[in-house]
Amino acid sequence: MKIAIIGGTGYGAVELVRFLNNHPYAELKAIVSHSQSGVELSDVYPHTTDLINIKMEELDIDALSEVIDLVFFATPSNISKGIIPSFIEKGVKCIDLSGDFRLKSPDAYQKWYQSSPADQNYIDKAVYGLSEIYEEQVKGASLIANPGCFPTATLLALIPVMEQGFTDNNSIIIDAKTGVSGAGRSLSLNVHYSETNDNLKAYKLGEHKHIPEIEQTLQEQSGEDIQVTFSTHLVPMTRGIMSTIYIDLTETKSTADIIDIYKEYYKNHPFVRIRPEGTLPTTKEVYGSNYCDIGFHSDQRTGKLIIISVIDNLVKGASGQAIQNMNLLYGWDVTTGLNYLPIYP
Amino acid sequence: MKIAIIGGTGYGAVELVRFLNNHPYAELKAIVSHSQSGVELSDVYPHTTDLINIKMEELDIDALSEVIDLVFFATPSNISKGIIPSFIEKGVKCIDLSGDFRLKSPDAYQKWYQSSPADQNYIDKAVYGLSEIYEEQVKGASLIANPGCFPTATLLALIPVMEQGFTDNNSIIIDAKTGVSGAGRSLSLNVHYSETNDNLKAYKLGEHKHIPEIEQTLQEQSGEDIQVTFSTHLVPMTRGIMSTIYIDLTETKSTADIIDIYKEYYKNHPFVRIRPEGTLPTTKEVYGSNYCDIGFHSDQRTGKLIIISVIDNLVKGASGQAIQNMNLLYGWDVTTGLNYLPIYP
Amino acid sequence: MKIAIIGGTGYGAVELVRFLNNHPYAELKAIVSHSQSGVELSDVYPHTTDLINIKMEELDIDALSEVIDLVFFATPSNISKGIIPSFIEKGVKCIDLSGDFRLKSPDAYQKWYQSSPADQNYIDKAVYGLSEIYEEQVKGASLIANPGCFPTATLLALIPVMEQGFTDNNSIIIDAKTGVSGAGRSLSLNVHYSETNDNLKAYKLGEHKHIPEIEQTLQEQSGEDIQVTFSTHLVPMTRGIMSTIYIDLTETKSTADIIDIYKEYYKNHPFVRIRPEGTLPTTKEVYGSNYCDIGFHSDQRTGKLIIISVIDNLVKGASGQAIQNMNLLYGWDVTTGLNYLPIYP
Amino acid sequence: MKIAIIGGTGYGAVELVRFLNNHPYAELKAIVSHSQSGVELSDVYPHTTDLINIKMEELDIDALSEVIDLVFFATPSNISKGIIPSFIEKGVKCIDLSGDFRLKSPDAYQKWYQSSPADQNYIDKAVYGLSEIYEEQVKGASLIANPGCFPTATLLALIPVMEQGFTDNNSIIIDAKTGVSGAGRSLSLNVHYSETNDNLKAYKLGEHKHIPEIEQTLQEQSGEDIQVTFSTHLVPMTRGIMSTIYIDLTETKSTADIIDIYKEYYKNHPFVRIRPEGTLPTTKEVYGSNYCDIGFHSDQRTGKLIIISVIDNLVKGASGQAIQNMNLLYGWDVTTGLNYLPIYP
Repeated sequence: MKIAIIGGTGYGAVELVRFLNNHPYAELKAIVSHSQSGVELSDVYPHTTDLINIKMEELDIDALSEVIDLVFFATPSNISKGIIPSFIEKGVKCIDLSGDFRLKSPDAYQKWYQSSPADQNYIDKAVYGLSEIYEEQVKGASLIANPGCFPTATLLALIPVMEQGFTDNNSIIIDAKTGVSGAGRSLSLNVHYSETNDNLKAYKLGEHKHIPEIEQTLQEQSGEDIQVTFSTHLVPMTRGIMSTIYIDLTETKSTADIIDIYKEYYKNHPFVRIRPEGTLPTTKEVYGSNYCDIGFHSDQRTGKLIIISVIDNLVKGASGQAIQNMNLLYGWDVTTGLNYLPIYP
Repeated sequence: MKIAIIGGTGYGAVELVRFLNNHPYAELKAIVSHSQSGVELSDVYPHTTDLINIKMEELDIDALSEVIDLVFFATPSNISKGIIPSFIEKGVKCIDLSGDFRLKSPDAYQKWYQSSPADQNYIDKAVYGLSEIYEEQVKGASLIANPGCFPTATLLALIPVMEQGFTDNNSIIIDAKTGVSGAGRSLSLNVHYSETNDNLKAYKLGEHKHIPEIEQTLQEQSGEDIQVTFSTHLVPMTRGIMSTIYIDLTETKSTADIIDIYKEYYKNHPFVRIRPEGTLPTTKEVYGSNYCDIGFHSDQRTGKLIIISVIDNLVKGASGQAIQNMNLLYGWDVTTGLNYLPIYP
Repeated sequence: MKIAIIGGTGYGAVELVRFLNNHPYAELKAIVSHSQSGVELSDVYPHTTDLINIKMEELDIDALSEVIDLVFFATPSNISKGIIPSFIEKGVKCIDLSGDFRLKSPDAYQKWYQSSPADQNYIDKAVYGLSEIYEEQVKGASLIANPGCFPTATLLALIPVMEQGFTDNNSIIIDAKTGVSGAGRSLSLNVHYSETNDNLKAYKLGEHKHIPEIEQTLQEQSGEDIQVTFSTHLVPMTRGIMSTIYIDLTETKSTADIIDIYKEYYKNHPFVRIRPEGTLPTTKEVYGSNYCDIGFHSDQRTGKLIIISVIDNLVKGASGQAIQNMNLLYGWDVTTGLNYLPIYP
Repeated sequence: MKIAIIGGTGYGAVELVRFLNNHPYAELKAIVSHSQSGVELSDVYPHTTDLINIKMEELDIDALSEVIDLVFFATPSNISKGIIPSFIEKGVKCIDLSGDFRLKSPDAYQKWYQSSPADQNYIDKAVYGLSEIYEEQVKGASLIANPGCFPTATLLALIPVMEQGFTDNNSIIIDAKTGVSGAGRSLSLNVHYSETNDNLKAYKLGEHKHIPEIEQTLQEQSGEDIQVTFSTHLVPMTRGIMSTIYIDLTETKSTADIIDIYKEYYKNHPFVRIRPEGTLPTTKEVYGSNYCDIGFHSDQRTGKLIIISVIDNLVKGASGQAIQNMNLLYGWDVTTGLNYLPIYP
């Protein structure tokens, strides 16, 4: 299978390159970057020296379509919506790591992305690629909207319990924390080392564009009109997301009760690991890997369930899940090219 | 005024030394450490080389009481409760940075500290030294129970709003994050660099002994029977605490409304700084200083108020507030020896 | 091929587990740990949850020898020297990651390790496993002394140039820097997060036990009696070693001249990557991988050649090179199970 | 004494503000910033909220000269050389933290700064403000060229021994390491958190513009024509410089011999602290303070003296030493406004 990546200078692209390099069935044929066209990838990312010999190139949809089966878009918002339709028309499958095709409602896109939405025909065609939840839909898709990093960690942790009937699904609070690589490689004072090291920052309280993405999926899964309180924090570390989730229980449930539900729910999904009672996952325990690890504490005093969900934001939160979706798309084993242990310490 | 510190090898002690070294009215006369008795402080903490020439000594209550006016206890739990009564009897004032005299209920102490409480007479005598809130009581105290780090950041951020009558005080969720120095200088895998760096860990969900301390004060201030959901996270940074607090509003209030209330509440309290709308404090912005900075976001979608409160856990969360209480005790200006800018970056 | 690891709770062991888990020809059958015998590996290292299902066990040489072809020793100094002879006698091959069999001179071992050396017969039998340099010897070995982390980064960077005849080989200064994982998982104030974060420490100047290991190999390669000045620094990062090496040139050579020599020397060795003029490798560019990246600056003003050599101390500096040696031993392609891109960022 | 700072948005400026805020004799009257003219300092640096109420302003030399006694230049290279003469003419003293007036040779400035030098009259007038070494000259100066960060750490560590006659002063190698704040607040990939965290980088080997500054002073102090090998490394920490210095001994000297020389040399200089044998200073042990701590190891095997010298790059390496020079200039005690303990941990 022949692959191209569009958006070649960001962290999403370079993680795709890492996984594709060892994938047995997929071959990376082209990396497109407007700003670095003509430059060797290893000049921009010296860690690929001697291993990846690809010059980045300008986008040429016609030429690419003739040699490529699948395109990954690792572009910022507002780029892929203008390009993907042309690829789809030519029969090339697309996996979009940006947010352009995630929201089904054009009004929501307009409001949260402050920009006009993609063509509604393609929005309708797009499958939301939260692999464990939409596995069947992904298998037949031509266009996959790969989920955001915070929604991935949050939704995998919430969906099994909110369907049980013993939670108040309008009580959800998500206190999310992310490492700095989630902000990408662009320059800003917010990712300046001296401003970020030994510093913890809250940002975009109640205003993050991952909110409508989380709510849309929770609503679809539960059939309820759900609104969540969502806050984000920038943690002085490179990789990792933790979502600490609070939800009211309407019946008394022990931590063990909850764990049983999740173990059963994810028993056929190797990339979700449910932690035993008394332990909680840490972000480093999934470093560099495609796992989402989830732990629980049912607080008997206050009747709240607290869920801790961790992922590597660049892997399960972006490029790893994109590879997982490619595996589903072509009927390969879902762990193909992803079956590596986290790097610890 | 002559001062002694008991518990000389911990971070609390060495921060007290830093502030006392430049305090115009207080003189450090003795540092007590059982484990390091006879050793120069600068051998244990080389950053004090040439500047602090004090040998640590064994505890001798009688001898100390003759030359000392005030003792700071920078000891772990379960130490000061056995020693403080003897000092008080001899007319020496005590400021206890540990938790031994914070909880008024002996049952609560027994439950959360897993240990028998202090003598009830001394518990009754102890003033809870949250300086801005209990300023008057501190002024006349002989024994001050210096607050915990999480309670300080949390209570200063909650008390003004929960008295207003437009909040549901049983909806409070506190998602707290701390730097590693809060765990002290003792050795454990939890503070091992390779296990902690580039890692984010949740711990003691719903089980931290700062919970009863927070609830006791909220109950006293509001007259309501309040229970809070409280979780803690270990962040890969040395100093700093952030409490992200969620509370339901029962009336619509804008962020600006809330800020006005806090500005008024703390107008005579220089160590609490209220941030203008649209900005949120970060932990580094109070690094090394005694400030508690608070920012707000009223989430109109979900009707929740989100409060961000930051302190330096070793300063306003421990030794700085202890110095502030000493200033109050002796009628000195509250900023004496504490009026330094945070160190940034 | 059936494999056992002895010393199961350290970072060296858990990195071996990571690489063996994806190795096509080697199967991990046993992990020996005296302190954690009977415990699941995933209880000690939760990042292996669901992926590695092995209980650690007590050492039983006879039982192991019947089912095992090769043993990796990831033990501290002074352990393997007492065990390895028994395995060798029973025909089990051994790769020792500790220093017990590296020094050929028993006097040197006694002096630098402050302990009595291993049986001289086995020292004579041991091959020093610096893979690129001793490739042929490794292929026929029964006992491989896997090199230390600093010697690996340093020797690969020095050997090609010191054989050229235009360097003063007694002028060598090695200023080495390491991440904290090199100190292992044991507890000490030196690896306490709060003492290590945002801190840079020099240690063991001129006294590190990697000095005789470096000198022994330089002497063997050059035939000269060489002594090096060697200092080590602890850098606040988890992984990575950088050796900055200074050597006097006795003839004028440009940076380009030097690069040509190294490119030629390592042309058949995929794990050594020579950087082009004008760029220097950073430690993160080899993170998690088995690469040693080397860059150069010939300082025309002072006539010194400066060499920058980086490795991941736990991979090429320990477990990765051990796997590389296993590959050589069994005639597999040297990159088998090691052909992964570094993780960046 | 009335003070102005020019270059108000950099780290040098904000550290000057921190020290001036508690200085008993100096009053900060103006902060000049072209890019942020009209903006409150606390909008750019929120850690100064409520404490510093100064709007930054455009440069107006005439107006400033009437109300100001002293100007600190915390500007990048190539700015102060065009402004300082006008201030000097009007009788305003200047302390320049940039490199514009440090090099006495206009050719050296042209070569290393790639820019035309300042007016030679003012270069001749400028005193190199390495406070401990040029104390007497500083006292009578009108224009002080405040030293660079690397030269400060290096020269204080080298000058005492190279005057003794038992060193080969052309053998000097300086392996320098710095925290990231030394690169200032400007944006670049080199200070991007995700590229810098858990990463160690060497840069500008043999090409740093602090080289001629170091050599000029060593030559002046020794009367010899000295050239040094100098390399720099970027360490993942915010503050701190360590210079590891290697120099050949021409006579055998013990570590204790060396320490005696330095203790005597600096006995009247409180900001240089000589460490006892067997201990070496770490960068965190001078964090936030004006101290330069120096430790030694005389390597008997190789006849080299290794010196470890640490400073806080923003304090003794920039703003703190500038305050120290101001104190000297006005005859105040040298520690005025600087007598604070380092912040640890």
